[in-house]
Amino acid sequence: MLKTLNIKSRAKTEFIDITEDLQQIVRESETISGLCVVYVPHTTAGVTVNEGADPSVKRDIISSLSRIVPFDADYKHMEGNSAAHIKSTLTGVSLTLIVEDGKLELGTWQSVYFCEYDGPRHRRVIVKTI
Amino acid sequence: MLKTLNIKSRAKTEFIDITEDLQQIVRESETISGLCVVYVPHTTAGVTVNEGADPSVKRDIISSLSRIVPFDADYKHMEGNSAAHIKSTLTGVSLTLIVEDGKLELGTWQSVYFCEYDGPRHRRVIVKTI
Amino acid sequence: MLKTLNIKSRAKTEFIDITEDLQQIVRESETISGLCVVYVPHTTAGVTVNEGADPSVKRDIISSLSRIVPFDADYKHMEGNSAAHIKSTLTGVSLTLIVEDGKLELGTWQSVYFCEYDGPRHRRVIVKTI
Repeated sequence: MLKTLNIKSRAKTEFIDITEDLQQIVRESETISGLCVVYVPHTTAGVTVNEGADPSVKRDIISSLSRIVPFDADYKHMEGNSAAHIKSTLTGVSLTLIVEDGKLELGTWQSVYFCEYDGPRHRRVIVKTI
Repeated sequence: MLKTLNIKSRAKTEFIDITEDLQQIVRESETISGLCVVYVPHTTAGVTVNEGADPSVKRDIISSLSRIVPFDADYKHMEGNSAAHIKSTLTGVSLTLIVEDGKLELGTWQSVYFCEYDGPRHRRVIVKTI
Repeated sequence: MLKTLNIKSRAKTEFIDITEDLQQIVRESETISGLCVVYVPHTTAGVTVNEGADPSVKRDIISSLSRIVPFDADYKHMEGNSAAHIKSTLTGVSLTLIVEDGKLELGTWQSVYFCEYDGPRHRRVIVKTI
């Protein structure tokens, strides 16, 4: 089954928890055992898995990424969002999750985050279960 | 279906657009709805998805990666290509794409790049559709 | 088939070669042609593919990651392991491998590593073959 998740980011850089949306899609797909591929069709965004309990973790990830890849540097691309493109490649745009017993096999502390690196914008996440 | 793409890189560090080769493999496989896994069987190369329209984007990614992971540092590995190994781990060697309506589900601006970090060389990319 | 690999890390930061365990799981699953998804259900660990022949390569990757993401910085998360969370996002927690002729399609020099970033600990790796 193929589903599209519509996301509205509200900041330039922002991690948005999409775990519940994905669990919902898995339930609707009636997949008992299989895979769930989460795909971001954008070049200045990404997807990652990390801690969901303490929001300071995602803040630390976001600020570290901005330290590793500064917003301003000697970039050639003229749109001013090169840092966002680079962060997208560092994080990745595709994530393969395991489905078992009708739900995503995630660790206790894991959440799936859509990573906005050049917002605010309307974004899509494509989700395929097999 | 399993296919191997043969690639000849021409520079030490280079991103080579393989999107059309992948679309061609998907067409030949006659997969209508499924997955396409792109796998790089090398330890000093990788695969990523990023903007294909403006070539300055890939130049910015390449130069940023070389700033984050300098070619020369206090490396232990004696072959002189430690930076290439590290970039390979940062980018990743495996990419899962979604196939729908007989073609890759990519965003408007997305291209798939083979990432050469220690060229020039003959390289392979293994592509599996399911 | 779904299998869990139990891992005991012995250092704070450590790459543990799990290639043989994965090949064994693929053999037991009797998958001839398919995929093998390796999933780390932790937020301070990861999975990567890199050179297995020379152990200095993994040492260079580990020390570069610690240079890129210092253990101590102006982190907000109070558990003192923010660097481990960030490295987990840079490396990734999910890896899709190709199975052909009953074994993992890996390059000659490739090994699969479980990446411990906040050990020593008992850890799990979830492996699904399809």
